[in-house]
Amino acid sequence: MWSRAVAPSARRCALRSSPTVVVQLRHHVIGRRVPSEETLAALKELLGDRLSTAASVLEQHGTDESYHAVAPPDAVAFVQSTEEVSEVVKICAAGDTPVIPFGAGSSLEGHISAVQGGVSVDLTGMNAVLNVEFENMSCKVQAGVTREQLNVDLRATGLMFPVDPGANASIGGMIATNASGTTTVRYGNMKTNVMALTTVLADGRIVKTGARTRKSSAGYDLTRLFIGSEGTLGIVTEAELRLFGIPEAEKTMICQFDSIRNAVDMCATVMQMGIPVARMELMDENAVEAINKYSKLTTPVRPSLIVEHHGSPGEVKEQSAIVVDIANDFDAKDIELANSIEERKKLWSGRHAAWYATISQMPGSRGLSTDVAVPFGKLTDVIVETQADLKESGLFGAIVGHVGDGNFHVMLPILQDDAELMRRVHEFSDRLVNRAIKYEGTCTGEHGIGIGKLDYLLKEHGDTVEVMRTIKKALDPKNIMNPGKIFAATSATW
Amino acid sequence: MWSRAVAPSARRCALRSSPTVVVQLRHHVIGRRVPSEETLAALKELLGDRLSTAASVLEQHGTDESYHAVAPPDAVAFVQSTEEVSEVVKICAAGDTPVIPFGAGSSLEGHISAVQGGVSVDLTGMNAVLNVEFENMSCKVQAGVTREQLNVDLRATGLMFPVDPGANASIGGMIATNASGTTTVRYGNMKTNVMALTTVLADGRIVKTGARTRKSSAGYDLTRLFIGSEGTLGIVTEAELRLFGIPEAEKTMICQFDSIRNAVDMCATVMQMGIPVARMELMDENAVEAINKYSKLTTPVRPSLIVEHHGSPGEVKEQSAIVVDIANDFDAKDIELANSIEERKKLWSGRHAAWYATISQMPGSRGLSTDVAVPFGKLTDVIVETQADLKESGLFGAIVGHVGDGNFHVMLPILQDDAELMRRVHEFSDRLVNRAIKYEGTCTGEHGIGIGKLDYLLKEHGDTVEVMRTIKKALDPKNIMNPGKIFAATSATW
Repeated sequence: MWSRAVAPSARRCALRSSPTVVVQLRHHVIGRRVPSEETLAALKELLGDRLSTAASVLEQHGTDESYHAVAPPDAVAFVQSTEEVSEVVKICAAGDTPVIPFGAGSSLEGHISAVQGGVSVDLTGMNAVLNVEFENMSCKVQAGVTREQLNVDLRATGLMFPVDPGANASIGGMIATNASGTTTVRYGNMKTNVMALTTVLADGRIVKTGARTRKSSAGYDLTRLFIGSEGTLGIVTEAELRLFGIPEAEKTMICQFDSIRNAVDMCATVMQMGIPVARMELMDENAVEAINKYSKLTTPVRPSLIVEHHGSPGEVKEQSAIVVDIANDFDAKDIELANSIEERKKLWSGRHAAWYATISQMPGSRGLSTDVAVPFGKLTDVIVETQADLKESGLFGAIVGHVGDGNFHVMLPILQDDAELMRRVHEFSDRLVNRAIKYEGTCTGEHGIGIGKLDYLLKEHGDTVEVMRTIKKALDPKNIMNPGKIFAATSATW
Repeated sequence: MWSRAVAPSARRCALRSSPTVVVQLRHHVIGRRVPSEETLAALKELLGDRLSTAASVLEQHGTDESYHAVAPPDAVAFVQSTEEVSEVVKICAAGDTPVIPFGAGSSLEGHISAVQGGVSVDLTGMNAVLNVEFENMSCKVQAGVTREQLNVDLRATGLMFPVDPGANASIGGMIATNASGTTTVRYGNMKTNVMALTTVLADGRIVKTGARTRKSSAGYDLTRLFIGSEGTLGIVTEAELRLFGIPEAEKTMICQFDSIRNAVDMCATVMQMGIPVARMELMDENAVEAINKYSKLTTPVRPSLIVEHHGSPGEVKEQSAIVVDIANDFDAKDIELANSIEERKKLWSGRHAAWYATISQMPGSRGLSTDVAVPFGKLTDVIVETQADLKESGLFGAIVGHVGDGNFHVMLPILQDDAELMRRVHEFSDRLVNRAIKYEGTCTGEHGIGIGKLDYLLKEHGDTVEVMRTIKKALDPKNIMNPGKIFAATSATW
């Protein structure tokens, strides 16, 4: 069931919409699997008005924040419970229909695209924080809860969920891509902060994995297998999350340098000395300039690091003093401490706006973000080479990075109708990924494979991908769970 | 191939040795699979003198630190490279012969027992630290390296590998059981500190998983699937580990209380306030008394917490001052700061000797250690109930615990020939695991399932175990990789 010819009757509206689409989708569209009338009727009977086939709804559910072509599903199921997800999957499994989970739609690699058609399972209605257990410093949420909603809900408890990918993603989506972000250098990513999951498998079985404890050695770690599996093994409906106390004190500073090499080398030194940082974010000149224009700031246009410490007042004072000394060792030109909550917020709102700030530099553009991570010792070289490559290629792009984790993004505004620009952007991105892999890095630190990095996964992991595929086939023999993601459906052996 | 009758020709020396053995092994001995003459000849040709069938060698390789009966393999392969492990596995796969990895033999759940016979793959010859990369704060080691050897090798670099399960386990063994220990509250466990693996699968394929980067979202997380899989999915031969700087300053104190409730409640408060601790170890009165006798110490016999801080001199001073305040809030009777390296070492050498100290209380005994972990908010109740149960049962046992992680052990000296004592010990252990599961905890925080907790895994994870088994069957269809561990081979469908 892993190989299918293109059904002549398949709806092809999305595929016909532009020539670019054909190029972008060539890897993964083997055959659309349109739900049969029986499948749609069974879903309608289950969900009533909560099953939609309205064109605008379909279009929205095939669209994320990425540059990838829109590939709408054939129907959208607005689910309200784990049991309902299970019923939807059972109906789709019986009808051999793809099932694509949908959260906030903030993916950057086309994860929610219905590249083979099928039913989008919209989890935004499952947005309850089921409980907050202060004593265990944990909470249980439904997958549709967004991270901002969760932190607003938590505020009165003095606790927070720290993983911050920038976008107001849903917890389910963050689990699907193993999201991380600015605070991961201190608090970890989804793999370290998700304790347990409820997941609906490809046959509709509901399984609970993990434990409500800080640690367990009881059997295979299915929780961490599902995290980052991008909906290809099951649909996560509930998650138990680890929480942290909101820090007593926070101290934020921006350090500016004449060269990006000094900025990254300083960051490396901070990490190697083991100075605890809560965030350490790099912005190159282009990022600073774009943010200045977009957010009406006047930060001097230089390579910059925003460094933040969390802890007791004494700890953050001591830590930030050491970081100032290190910054001076690397010839920092300006070091500005945020002295008030307002100044802190201004710094971070600028950084968080980097994506839209960069896109806004080219009217009518969308954005493409690279996502490599490299071993820490190679980071400076890779960033310096990448900046030089960007200049040589004549492209506009802004470099921002979670450099404490060896992960950085080049954000590039793109015009999908400009074939020459797209070719240069893709070539630049390709050189960057190859550079990262040459330095034993990864093509994706936090965005996932989706439909955008299928070939790179093979390049990075080689034969190991076959082992991943063995697990996929064992758990989803009909390949109905988000097909075409992670694994390209090009091979006749599928 | 998952179901086998008992081969009449099977060697049964281990199974015949005592009636206790039969009881303990009833769950998992479905059939021994003795290597054929062809298999042994092929191994001999590959390894020469490094294949042993000497009785004493076989006996040693069926013996760990646990109370479980000795089940020796039929041969031991002393391997020297990943390629050699691959060849051994290929030969065994062709001959349908079980393969059991062997490291330091410090397992507490019978992981290295050859319960179906087969070939023990001794990795102690693969004990090279392949490289230490200071800039990336990582190193690559062969699986036979022990954690103490690694830290001695690292000393000159100023770096350390922090995971400390107490025993001088091999890194491969620590990966197999997802080990953790005293420092996990600060530095994490094997899942957070192993970045990449080289693993030999059941068909002899050599696969590399993970990345040399701090994070990656590239495909399924096979690294964390293999960690804690107890050799049932493959044999790990090399690992890339995350390292940490040896802290500039360390401060250790022992706080003593009149009641164990106050000791555990204090620990909960420290965690909930987010005070960074590097270790926080509970010892009950019995543990303190046993350690006093064994290590010739004079610590007052009271429930005690050893608390340690790592950081800069300013940080550890501030943190330990806060902890002293909290301890006083919980009516601490004595708070003693270790003022010198010698005093620090004395405190920790006592704690690390707890296992042998407890066993030494009963001449001629071996030890049984429980390993439950519970949600943090339930820890005090579970420990108080367990201590009361221990007293009521009239058994001698010492409670020690990594209480910052909600994980504690009851160490019980046992005499395997004393059927009445064994019955009472098993009943106590059974009540404890059921209590932990009732409080949504886990039967094993860090020791693994092995052959000792097969039924509890089912009790804890129910139908989810079937999903684990699906993965096992997909990756090891002949069930040759450490069979009888994690999954009981009782079902006719195997």
